[in-house]
Order: sequence, then C-alpha cells, then structure tokens
Amino acid sequence: MAPQYAPSLRSRLGPLLFVLQTGFILIFAFCAEVDSNVNVNGSTFKDSYTDFQDVNVMVMFGFGFMCTFLVRHGFSAVGFNLLVATMTTQWAIILNNVESWYYSGKIRLNMRSLVVAEICTVSALVSIGAVLGKTNPVQLVFIALLEVSGFVLNEWLLLNLLKVRPGNSMMLLHIFGAFFGLTVTWILYRKDSEQRFEKEKADHKSGLFSMLGTVFLWVFWPSFNSALLSGRSPVRKLECVCSSYLALAVSAVTAAAVSVIFNPKGRFNLLHLQSCILSGGVAIGVSMPVVLQPWEAMLIGFAAAILSTFGFHLLQIHMLLAFQCHDTRAILSTHGLPGLLGWLAHFILLIRQCDDHTTAVRFAVFHICTLLITITTSLSMGILTGFLLKLKIWRTPQNKKCFDDQAFWEFPHLAVHK
Amino acid sequence: MAPQYAPSLRSRLGPLLFVLQTGFILIFAFCAEVDSNVNVNGSTFKDSYTDFQDVNVMVMFGFGFMCTFLVRHGFSAVGFNLLVATMTTQWAIILNNVESWYYSGKIRLNMRSLVVAEICTVSALVSIGAVLGKTNPVQLVFIALLEVSGFVLNEWLLLNLLKVRPGNSMMLLHIFGAFFGLTVTWILYRKDSEQRFEKEKADHKSGLFSMLGTVFLWVFWPSFNSALLSGRSPVRKLECVCSSYLALAVSAVTAAAVSVIFNPKGRFNLLHLQSCILSGGVAIGVSMPVVLQPWEAMLIGFAAAILSTFGFHLLQIHMLLAFQCHDTRAILSTHGLPGLLGWLAHFILLIRQCDDHTTAVRFAVFHICTLLITITTSLSMGILTGFLLKLKIWRTPQNKKCFDDQAFWEFPHLAVHK
Amino acid sequence: MAPQYAPSLRSRLGPLLFVLQTGFILIFAFCAEVDSNVNVNGSTFKDSYTDFQDVNVMVMFGFGFMCTFLVRHGFSAVGFNLLVATMTTQWAIILNNVESWYYSGKIRLNMRSLVVAEICTVSALVSIGAVLGKTNPVQLVFIALLEVSGFVLNEWLLLNLLKVRPGNSMMLLHIFGAFFGLTVTWILYRKDSEQRFEKEKADHKSGLFSMLGTVFLWVFWPSFNSALLSGRSPVRKLECVCSSYLALAVSAVTAAAVSVIFNPKGRFNLLHLQSCILSGGVAIGVSMPVVLQPWEAMLIGFAAAILSTFGFHLLQIHMLLAFQCHDTRAILSTHGLPGLLGWLAHFILLIRQCDDHTTAVRFAVFHICTLLITITTSLSMGILTGFLLKLKIWRTPQNKKCFDDQAFWEFPHLAVHK
Repeated sequence: MAPQYAPSLRSRLGPLLFVLQTGFILIFAFCAEVDSNVNVNGSTFKDSYTDFQDVNVMVMFGFGFMCTFLVRHGFSAVGFNLLVATMTTQWAIILNNVESWYYSGKIRLNMRSLVVAEICTVSALVSIGAVLGKTNPVQLVFIALLEVSGFVLNEWLLLNLLKVRPGNSMMLLHIFGAFFGLTVTWILYRKDSEQRFEKEKADHKSGLFSMLGTVFLWVFWPSFNSALLSGRSPVRKLECVCSSYLALAVSAVTAAAVSVIFNPKGRFNLLHLQSCILSGGVAIGVSMPVVLQPWEAMLIGFAAAILSTFGFHLLQIHMLLAFQCHDTRAILSTHGLPGLLGWLAHFILLIRQCDDHTTAVRFAVFHICTLLITITTSLSMGILTGFLLKLKIWRTPQNKKCFDDQAFWEFPHLAVHK
Repeated sequence: MAPQYAPSLRSRLGPLLFVLQTGFILIFAFCAEVDSNVNVNGSTFKDSYTDFQDVNVMVMFGFGFMCTFLVRHGFSAVGFNLLVATMTTQWAIILNNVESWYYSGKIRLNMRSLVVAEICTVSALVSIGAVLGKTNPVQLVFIALLEVSGFVLNEWLLLNLLKVRPGNSMMLLHIFGAFFGLTVTWILYRKDSEQRFEKEKADHKSGLFSMLGTVFLWVFWPSFNSALLSGRSPVRKLECVCSSYLALAVSAVTAAAVSVIFNPKGRFNLLHLQSCILSGGVAIGVSMPVVLQPWEAMLIGFAAAILSTFGFHLLQIHMLLAFQCHDTRAILSTHGLPGLLGWLAHFILLIRQCDDHTTAVRFAVFHICTLLITITTSLSMGILTGFLLKLKIWRTPQNKKCFDDQAFWEFPHLAVHK
Repeated sequence: MAPQYAPSLRSRLGPLLFVLQTGFILIFAFCAEVDSNVNVNGSTFKDSYTDFQDVNVMVMFGFGFMCTFLVRHGFSAVGFNLLVATMTTQWAIILNNVESWYYSGKIRLNMRSLVVAEICTVSALVSIGAVLGKTNPVQLVFIALLEVSGFVLNEWLLLNLLKVRPGNSMMLLHIFGAFFGLTVTWILYRKDSEQRFEKEKADHKSGLFSMLGTVFLWVFWPSFNSALLSGRSPVRKLECVCSSYLALAVSAVTAAAVSVIFNPKGRFNLLHLQSCILSGGVAIGVSMPVVLQPWEAMLIGFAAAILSTFGFHLLQIHMLLAFQCHDTRAILSTHGLPGLLGWLAHFILLIRQCDDHTTAVRFAVFHICTLLITITTSLSMGILTGFLLKLKIWRTPQNKKCFDDQAFWEFPHLAVHK
C-alpha cells in the first residue's frame, strides 16, 4: 500500500518546499535587514536573546516531543514539527512586517521580531495537534501557513478595530489555534473514526518521550507568557513569571487529583495528565494583563485544570461521536477550554476593577467583541482551509496508514546508517 | 491484585491533594504578594530569572528523568516527581516566609524566594530517591512535605543557634536529605528485599532516559551551587561556577576510572557512573564557602568520586544485608557520602585558613555542631516520618507490585489516546 | 568473545585516566587561578555564563545524544562523549593558556577561557564521530587529546603566520575536525567494512534519542556561533544570531526537500535529515565575519543543505568503496563539506567587498593560505594519530564487537540496580 502515495510526496512536497523557500529568500533579499538598534522595547540584546531561546526551546522540543506519544508516529511528530516550525516562522516574520514593509520598504529583523514570529508559529503548532497523524506533510505545511496568515490577520483586525495591543492579542493564540484546528479536523472527518485507528495508541517509551516534551513546555511556559512584556518594567515581568509558575504548579497538582478521582480504579493516565498540567499556563497567559495577586493566578490554574480534565473526560468522546470531530492531541481541552477560561477570568477581573458602571459596560462590550472577532476569524479561516484540503490533489494517507511513520519515513528497523 | 489498592489512591490521593492545594491557595490569598522590589540581593530580575530556570530545569528534568532507570517505573518516576515537586515548592515558599509572615503579615514572592523554595524541594527529591518504587504517591507527598518542614526547621535552628548564613546551611541539603531518606527506608524495610525485587532492573532504553536526566543535573549543577550567591559579587559567582565545573569534570573522569578498575571484566556500569559523576558537584556545593583555588575544587571532586564509587560498591550491599536499608537510587553514595566529604573539606580548609589556635578550635567546634544538629534533625524527622508511614492507613503497594507503573497508571500498551 | 578484551580496559583505561587526571590536577595546582577581573571582553559575568552554558549543553546533550542512533551503542555514545569531553576540556584549558603560562606563570580561568576550551572540545567531538563504534574508549581519549593539541597548534600557526584572529580561526574547527577524523578512520580501515557491520543500524527509539540530540544542536547553534563575539558590540551579536537562525531554518527546509526528491519512494530518512539540517549552522559559522545581509545567510544555508545532502547520498558510499574510509556519523557531509562551503562563501564575499584589485588578490592569497594550513595540520595530525593507533597495544574491538555496548558495558538487561 505504502508505495501508492509515495509519489505524492516526491512530486509535491519537494517542489513545494523549494518554491516556498526560494520565495522567502527572494523576499528577504529585497527587503530584510538586521535592525541596528539592538535595545528594542527596553530589553538589552542578551535579555531578549534568552527570551527568544526559551520560546525556541518550547517550539522545537516542547511541541515536537509532546506529539511523540503515538507509538508509531514519533519521527513524524518531531520531524514535521521542525519542518513546519521553520517554514512558519519565516512566513510569520514576513507577515508581521507587512506594514513596515509597505511604509518603509524594509522588514526589520531583531530579537523581538523573531520572538513574535515564533509565538505566531506556536498558534500553528496548536492547530496541527488536531490533525496530527491524519494528514501528510504537504497538508501540514499548507495548514500552518494559512493558520498563521489568519492569526496575523486577526491581530491586525483587533489592533485596527478595537485598539487591542499586540501583546494582549497574541495570547489569544490558544483560542484561535484550537478553534482553527478543530474546524479543520471536523471538515476532514473520516468515516470509521468512531472505532479507533489501528495505530492510534501509546506505549511506555513513547509516553516518556512525550512526557519529556510536556515538561519542556511546563518549565519554559513562564518565559513564554512574559516574552512579550517590555523590559522597561521588570516588576510586570516578575509578576507575570510568578503568576505563571504558581498557576502551572496548581494546575499540575489539581490535574493529578481530578484525574485519580475520575478513574474508576484510581489510577493516573499519562496522556491525560500531559494535557491538563499545562492548562494553568494557557489560562494565565490569556488573563495575564489583569491578574494582580498570586492567589488569583492560583485560582485560575485550579479552575483551568478542573475544566481541562472535565473536557478531556466528557467532551473528547462527545466531540468525536456527536460532532464527528477527531482531535488527536486533545487541543480542545489543552488549549481551547483553558483559553476560554482565561478570557472569562480576564473579563471578570476587568469588570471588578472598574469604578463606575459605564466604563464597566464599555469594557465588557469591547472584551466580548475581541473574543467574537477572534473566533469568527478562526472559524472562517478553518472552514476555508478545511475545504481546500478536501480537494483531490493532496493524496491524503488512507485510514490504514494513519498514525504510521512508515508512510513517510524509510522505516528504521531496516534502515542502515551509511 | 492491582485493583486491590486502586481504591486507596482514589479515596486518599484525590481528596488529600484537593485539601492541601485549597489550603495553599487560601494561605496565599490572605498573605502572599509579589515583591515590588525587583532587584533582590544585587541581582537584576533577568539574572535571577535565569538562575531560577536553571534550578527548575534540574528539579523537573534532572531528578525526574534520573529516576527513570527502572524499566517499568518510568511514568511514576517522572509523574510523581512533578507532583511532589510542585506540592513541595508551594509548601516551602510558605515555610520559608513564616517569619516575615509573623512580623509583617506578608509572604513576599520574588525570584529569590522561588529559588530558595526550589532548593528546599531538591532536598525532598533526594530523600524520595531512597524509597522510590516502594511507596505510593500519597506516601511520597507526605514524606516530601515532612522532609521539607524538617529541612526548614534545621535551617532555622542553624541560623538561630549558630548564626549559620542561609546560603551555607542550604547546601547541607544533601546530607539532610540523604540521612532522612535512609532512615525512612530503613524503617519501611520489607522482608525478602535481600533477594531482588522482581521488577527492580534497568534496560537499554530506560538507561538512556536516566542518563538524560543525569546529564541535565551535571550540566546545570554549577548554576545550582551559585544560585544563592549575591549578584553583588560576580567574582564569587565566577569562582563558584569554575570550581563546580572543574569538580564535576574531575569526578566524571575519576568515576569512570575507578568504575573500570573495580569491575572484574573491566566494563562500565551505567547506573553506577550516573551516581558517581555527580559526586563532585555535591561535595563542592557543601565546601564552597572556603574553596579558593581551582585545584582544591579538583581535588575535592577527585576524592568525592573515589568515595562515592567505593560507597556504591562496598556499602550499598552491606547497607541492605547488615542494616536492612534498601536504597533504590543509591542516595547514600550519590548525596550522603560526597556531602560528608564536602563537610570534611570545608572543615579542613577552614582550620588551615585560621591564623591562631583559639580561632581554629572555635571554628572547629562550631563546624562540628553544624553537622551534628543537621544529622540529629534529619534522623529525628526521618524516624518520625517512618513510623507515621508504618500505620495501616496508607495501603502501601505489595512486594509484587513494587517498581511497577501498572499499580498506579493505566497501562499504556492498552491505553488509547482519544 | 567479550572477555577477550575486557582486561584491556581494566589494565589500560583505569590507569590512563588516573595518570592523566592527576597530571591535570597537578598542573592546575601549580598554575591555575580564577581571574579576578570578571568582565572579560565587554561581557558581564552573567552574559558569558549563559554563553558557556549554551555551549556546554551542546557538547553534553547535543553531541552525546546525536550519536545514540546506533541501536546497540547508546550507552557508549553518551557515556564516552561525557568522558572524552571532560578530559578534553581540561586539556584544552591548559593548552590555550600555554602562552600566558609561559610569560606570567599563570593559567587564568574565566568564563571566556572555559567557553574557548569547550569549543576546542567540539572539534574533537566532530572527529570522534568518524570512528565511533569502531574504537575503544582508550583510543577515543587518545584521539581527542591529540586532535585538540593539533587544533590549538593550528590556531597558533594561523595567529602567528597570518594574524588570523582567534575568533575567526576557531570556527575552522568543522573543517579541521572533519579532515582529522576522516584521516584517522581511513588509516584504521578494517577489511570487510564494505558489507555492513552487523550492528550498525538504527531503530525507532534510538532514532528519537538521536533526534533529541540533533534538536539540541539545532536550537543552541546560534549561541555557539556568537559565543566568541565581544559583548562590546551587541549589534554584531544580533547579526550573528539572526544569520545563524535563518541559515539553520533554511537548511532544515531545504534538506527535507532534497531528501524527499532523492528518495525513489518519496520518503524521508531520519539519519539523513539529522546530518543535513545542521549544515546551515556550520557554513554560516565559518563565513560569519563577512555575512552582512540576512539573505546572504539564507542563501548559504540553502547551498549548504543541498551540498550536504548530495554529499550524504553520493559521496558517503564512494568514500567507503573507493577510498576505504568508513565514516560512522557522516562527518564529511555534516561538518566537512558545509565547512568548506562556508570558507568559499567567506572567500567570495570578501573579494566582492574589496574596492581595488590589489587588496582583493592579497586577501585571496591570505584566505587560501588559511585553508591550506588548516588542512595540512589536520591531515598531518590525523596521519600521526592514525598510525599510532595502528600499534598493537590498544586492543581494538574485533569486527563482531563493533557498534556494540556489550563490549564495554555491563549489559543492562541483566544488570540490577542495587
């Protein structure tokens, strides 16, 4: 069976990557230059470089290895993650600078523009989690580039319609990425998914690799949440780091507690834990601008872990059976629900901090609009992407070849390193 | 058999974690606030944040993955490590600030208080190494919380009785943790441990995961030793980092040499190496305040590696047979003996640096008292913890279920990620 | 068979390590001191410490785990890498300071001297990639120490004959290391290597460990390239980091594209990808001083990936059959060819930037001499090392025992952790 779609990759992926990469090089050749002003936004070079590296570690190790839980899909998880992330980051650098390109003819590269591009890439990696193992790398690259375009468009809309600062709108990536990914996987639904795919399972070693990736995300999440804050206000950065750490710690403990209580035999489930221990970081990222006290952060982490665990247990199977939406990496409960909770926490805290009624109402409307625009853009782009992927040209892997490295990799039991 | 103690976790671990976590949130709600003074102790926010991250990496990756060497205990090693570490750190933040809470009514959070709490957590993680695989997570959480309480008490005693600065007393964590853990495992001794437990063995892949964790510890150990030094004296930090690196390098080489000579076939033993290459970092951490020359650090690393290797070969089996003390992760030779050696090196160098006889004797008495108090507190807390754990309420895993993930985790060969 | 050379290690490796380590301690005891001037070369302690750590992470995780791809050689890959790296770094610290030792009687330790020593170590780790699995640890230590001596000699020659600044000559380590390693493995050629060694193959899990190491290298490569730049010019560092990141990203995408096109079934090969995604980092490291524009970096990454992939596909097997040169980790296509390409890019860009003809010719001659000296030194030292290793005293593993942990490690399926 395997040779059946092998030609697809040879004739499509190779040329596609070549054309895109050549295009990116040409765009950079005509427009990009390194910013000679090193201290952007109050951070010295070294400070922003460590921020960049932490985010880069999350993108490459965290998301890459987190997806290795599928027992026969490890190479694809790590390899395609690297491929998609490097493509998407280059594309995001260009998109984020379209405005400055338009006005000054130049794309300026500095540590901050790289960090912003990496964060946009994260939104694409979130989406890809939903279709992982059921799509080929050509489709993954296509999804990621469209997702990032949609995300940057959303940010532009929020900035121009509602004056939402980029630092705040960026963190909606979890909501945007999750809904985009769910829409795509819903449109790409395959019959017979109600019964499990033959190879959609984990084993002991793939679980450990996946745990490694998750711990990378867990450890560096405070850097992720604080990467965009200005270096001019270290107090704000400190608050952000403390809040993120506490929220993550509380959500790890809570996820373990709920997980054990849910299980009839009182046992843990590793894949389940992996999804839920990160929920605190997601929720606090979205609600960061208004969280002032450590206990607020802890409470948000607590609620996020409970919501995420419930989502994993109750919604996951309903999504599949009732809505025909197969979500490989459980992005709904890992990113979607905690993101919405973070938005709600932001909403409540914002209203509570308002002095008079009029301001509160205005803020409320503004805040609800932010969410509506984000979800609308996300769903529209998701529907567009999904239908484009339904075309016959992509040679999607057959059901039997889903979640299997053998479709895309020379299988290593036979491979000899020469 | 497995279902026999499954209810235990469901009815005990879940509620325990919930109650503790809610308690922590309440305490934080009433008392904790983020310190508005960012530059604590001469370090800027960014500097202390990288220190915090390095220690966090050691706690999560280092100790977590180091314990994965047991072939069927990988999930427990990493998962329970995360659970215990997050619980203990929250508890340590509270305990460390009891005094400031008492006087000012506030627990102040800053990067330094998080780093200190993480280092206290390390002492608990050291202890847990001795009982790993023979206890359930309820017991692990209980041991860790008591251990940290004892460790903070010890630090308070040293500060108030002997005026030992916190920076110096913290590093006694290796001695405190090792003796605490050994006492607990000695009290919890199970008959038939002379014959090996059925599942207490390593294989090729679990050895590599374990090596990964060890290398994380090895690489970031200089950060661990220097994390508490004031940012006001970068020379002291530089000396500390250079000494730690050299001691670790020498102990890696020496451990390999001794290990090969000991083995009748002249082969290495990976688990053995893993324990011993870290001994230099432990010993230099304890003796840091008086190490002035690079060669002193190298000599300490050399001696620590030899002592640790001897301890592993000769003491380990005697501890088991003669003292009925089963030490899963060999914490005696990894942390206990090198810690004592570091204390001795500190002692000798301190005496040598004294000018007159009277000062020397005074320092000697003072220094011996430090050790005695530490060991006494450690043993008393260990005995207390051990006897509490002998109660019937804990539903300890049976001998057959020791070192087996299957007792606590839905086994992944069957688990399907939906 | 195994016991046949077991004595070799016991009687040779143990004493060798002991003697060398004692010698190093003695040299440090008489000459080394920690530099009291913390801010070397315009970088504060903290800045150079993070540089050092990044390079250390690459040395320990990157090179160690990258070599774990061989299915039965994981322990040796990681363990011997640690052993060799710690020995070599100590030796490199001494060698690099011979001049200051000669004049002032002191070896000064600071963060920069550690970073420089680690970078020298990288050149030895590159060489070792070629003989991996076919040599015992005694030979590996011997090769590494000689390689580093040759590399430091080469640097000294370049500095004194051609006034090449150390920052620039250091980056020739890829060329030096690759040619040294290839010469040694060519001289050590074993008959029957045309047929594959029995155990020279990868499997799914060893491939993932190897990918982990490769991603460590990929992520921290920008730190490696910029570690030696002075902290006084952050703009230069920013340019270097941006160029390195872009070159690595482009080479990852290009390597994937070429790899798929080359494969008749249109599939990826993981080991192949691992070698080639790093080529951009190598090439840009060598050509760094003259790369001014982002697109130049991207073009170099593009060309390096194509060259590296061609090299892997076409040269690798010819090297083995025609030149009898068996290159385990494909260092020719990972380091050698991209290094030469980087040199060529440096050459072309340098010439292009010259205003008049005379300067251009002078630069050209100077630049060609740099390469010739490097290759000559590398080949001579390689030949010397190779012939010394042909002596009977080393007890090289037999062909049947190549690429097998069992020759040097107590095999873990039987090993029990006591």
